[in-house]
Amino acid sequence: MTDRPALLLDLDGTLIDSVYQHAIAWHKALELGGIKLSVWRIHRRIGMSGGLLADSLARETGHELSEKEAAKLKRAHARLFAAQVRDVRPLPGALDLVRHLTKMRVAWAVATSGALASARPLLKLVNLPPGVPVITRDDVAHAKPNPDLWIAAAARLGVPIESAIAVGDSVWDLLAARRARALGVGLLSGGYGEDELERAGAYRVYADPADLLSHIDELGIRAD
Amino acid sequence: MTDRPALLLDLDGTLIDSVYQHAIAWHKALELGGIKLSVWRIHRRIGMSGGLLADSLARETGHELSEKEAAKLKRAHARLFAAQVRDVRPLPGALDLVRHLTKMRVAWAVATSGALASARPLLKLVNLPPGVPVITRDDVAHAKPNPDLWIAAAARLGVPIESAIAVGDSVWDLLAARRARALGVGLLSGGYGEDELERAGAYRVYADPADLLSHIDELGIRAD
Repeated sequence: MTDRPALLLDLDGTLIDSVYQHAIAWHKALELGGIKLSVWRIHRRIGMSGGLLADSLARETGHELSEKEAAKLKRAHARLFAAQVRDVRPLPGALDLVRHLTKMRVAWAVATSGALASARPLLKLVNLPPGVPVITRDDVAHAKPNPDLWIAAAARLGVPIESAIAVGDSVWDLLAARRARALGVGLLSGGYGEDELERAGAYRVYADPADLLSHIDELGIRAD
Repeated sequence: MTDRPALLLDLDGTLIDSVYQHAIAWHKALELGGIKLSVWRIHRRIGMSGGLLADSLARETGHELSEKEAAKLKRAHARLFAAQVRDVRPLPGALDLVRHLTKMRVAWAVATSGALASARPLLKLVNLPPGVPVITRDDVAHAKPNPDLWIAAAARLGVPIESAIAVGDSVWDLLAARRARALGVGLLSGGYGEDELERAGAYRVYADPADLLSHIDELGIRAD
């Protein structure tokens, strides 16, 4: 497998330009729940499991969230994000990358900390070919930064996680990749700085899917 | 003047938590004008003069903006931002910082790349005391990264710009400070990474107004 690494792709901020709408939706949801937080602090948590995100943000304000409150928060976020989904677009190169990987017969999958219900309209935007595995929050016990999502994606492809390359825009994607013993590749398209991604262990950093595609040889991704 | 530096403060992302709403508003405005750009690329231009921002983003997509198109874009952005202004809050510590500076009789002013019409509702959110100068886009020939706004703010206070400290959340604030020969202090509250602000010349970087206030001695800001 060492000559043909599999590619595991995050969704929000990696294939889809949705991180800023997620940050705004969480900001409103938290405020409705009585938790006041700056949007940039929320932005830096996007890509984490929704439960961890809500817990960690509540803790920052000295709040303890009950399970009921956390569930309510997640529902409010899902509703407020859905209200903005018509403004959400695929990132530059996302469709080309999807086509290219499929054409080259690279083993690849999508792994997202989001629930399937939130991910479904986004997956439509990139014309996901049939047969590409999609692992969501609903398939694993713990989302990122736990390694479960990347590990489940590699398992679904039948490839060893150690030879897979996990691509994401957030620090949590890269920390999860390190925990999973995959190589992590960072994209700037979620709005993190290059330095933040490198410090979280990124093997390489590209601007967005278009930039990754035009440098895909650097990762040793070859046609079948 | 060396023992009592004046403080020149940016508005969006520095006193007010409005950068993400600005990014979303520009994203929609640009799309209405036929220009498709990722939100993170727009985010990295917030704090620039609106004209430069529109020009630079249009250029990225191979578009040449006519003066009329640029004016239309700026109007669309102002309208779309105004529609979100009810969700915009002061940043943590912004009101405390304003009170503290006024109580300490520090010479201070606000200098923003935004127009007065967009800035007015935001200035209300921080209870700006009467007598604090506010320099907006309407007062200068060129907004940031040109040095005009910081220079005009220092002039209004009657202090030499070389002894002033200019505080902002964007790379453009810091580049403008260097061009003006002021010291630039960066805040993370606009969503840039620490490294990006340091590489743009930040003398110090704090999280937000609250963090700046609790470290204000580091800047040698003393009571009268």
